[in-house]
Amino acid sequence: MAINLWKATHFNGKDFEEIETPLISERPLTIYINDKEFITLLSYPDNIEELALGFLKSEGLIEDIDQIKKIKLDKDKTKIHIEADITTLEERLYEKRIVTTGCGKGSIFFFALDSLKCRFAEVKKRWDYKQIIALMREINTHRGTKNIRGLHVCGFYDGTNFVVREDVGRHNALDKIVGHCLINRINTEDSIIFTTGRISSEILLKSAKINAAIIVSRSTPTDLSLEIAEKLNLTVVGYVRGNQMTIYNAKERILI
Amino acid sequence: MAINLWKATHFNGKDFEEIETPLISERPLTIYINDKEFITLLSYPDNIEELALGFLKSEGLIEDIDQIKKIKLDKDKTKIHIEADITTLEERLYEKRIVTTGCGKGSIFFFALDSLKCRFAEVKKRWDYKQIIALMREINTHRGTKNIRGLHVCGFYDGTNFVVREDVGRHNALDKIVGHCLINRINTEDSIIFTTGRISSEILLKSAKINAAIIVSRSTPTDLSLEIAEKLNLTVVGYVRGNQMTIYNAKERILI
Repeated sequence: MAINLWKATHFNGKDFEEIETPLISERPLTIYINDKEFITLLSYPDNIEELALGFLKSEGLIEDIDQIKKIKLDKDKTKIHIEADITTLEERLYEKRIVTTGCGKGSIFFFALDSLKCRFAEVKKRWDYKQIIALMREINTHRGTKNIRGLHVCGFYDGTNFVVREDVGRHNALDKIVGHCLINRINTEDSIIFTTGRISSEILLKSAKINAAIIVSRSTPTDLSLEIAEKLNLTVVGYVRGNQMTIYNAKERILI
Repeated sequence: MAINLWKATHFNGKDFEEIETPLISERPLTIYINDKEFITLLSYPDNIEELALGFLKSEGLIEDIDQIKKIKLDKDKTKIHIEADITTLEERLYEKRIVTTGCGKGSIFFFALDSLKCRFAEVKKRWDYKQIIALMREINTHRGTKNIRGLHVCGFYDGTNFVVREDVGRHNALDKIVGHCLINRINTEDSIIFTTGRISSEILLKSAKINAAIIVSRSTPTDLSLEIAEKLNLTVVGYVRGNQMTIYNAKERILI
């Protein structure tokens, strides 16, 4: 599912040969809210309902699964219709924000809506560093989609549930996790978020909004993401590869 | 410039040690057009004018450098004020688009504005495959910023000019190149674009809009980007690593 074979010409360093190579699927998904076209995302077309609902939650349009009255995915899976209890105020705030910031490209923390939803995180749970390394290894070696390369993988762990999602975009992969937890009423407070991509300020804030406490990456955090992490007292762990890791702040959450 | 040192705790597989590690800078850049706040981008803060103008060109708001009357970058380099000849129509089209698609997250080809700016590319120039491999190697090993990891690199080559730019986002890196060519009046027709990131439909369309003919990546194209490339007759080359490469379509432009 969601993979095409493409006829290509491969140069192996010596000879050219005709091959058939699998491709990552990228599809537009247009979300309609209460019969109004809302947004079009480009994404890897699996777990589409999770993606749509996770996106709405991440963007602050819904808070709770009970606000969702009905979901209908079109046959070709490029349109999803959602009936939801959304106040006009939230829609208006979102429109204001999307125009001024370029939809998440913006420096989100400068928006009242975001700072309202992010708060200083007390250190409650602690995790063994070996567990972080072991789970990140699961994420790094995850091949949900027939061993195809090029997808970003995101993970969620709360001590009980371990959820892994993938997408062409690391934001989408995280939104699928947000949607999964929303749909299944999983409490995300004090959880760990894993990503194969960099920790930018946007990924950090998306994690902060669901009250995750630790954000782990096989790659690097940016300086802005660490500044925000300091302010919110979130733990950032980067470059988790092989048996190595770098803890950037709030290391009290990691038992070493 | 644009790098911070951060005190972190590193686990080397055996021991924990306190280290100082360099970080990638990520800064908000708010673009004002004719005294009106327009958009905030999160980016790596070098070549800021190129980024701002390249973004405006990629998004279809300006076409020509002569439309720019004045540019003023604030001291802290987080705000740029641009005086430009932009018709209200273009602004309105842009606002319509940004609301419905989430600013480039959207499936761009579905917009009249984009299809107007993209056209079928005749095969004119041809390039030796060895040259593609050699230039991609330059891009892959480019370390403009003190050998720091985690930045995306983009390149441009037209047979004479070779331009390399980097950013936390691959879209921004490409916009810096678009801006550089705009400012320096470099004709981008039939040029080659290189990227260290995946070729998504958005990267492909950004390249198509400046009439580049070949898009080269060390990573993979998505299926949607190839569908559009076929339609526009653009050449896509992926997985250029070491001495290997895969040509996905319109291979007449590559001399093998």
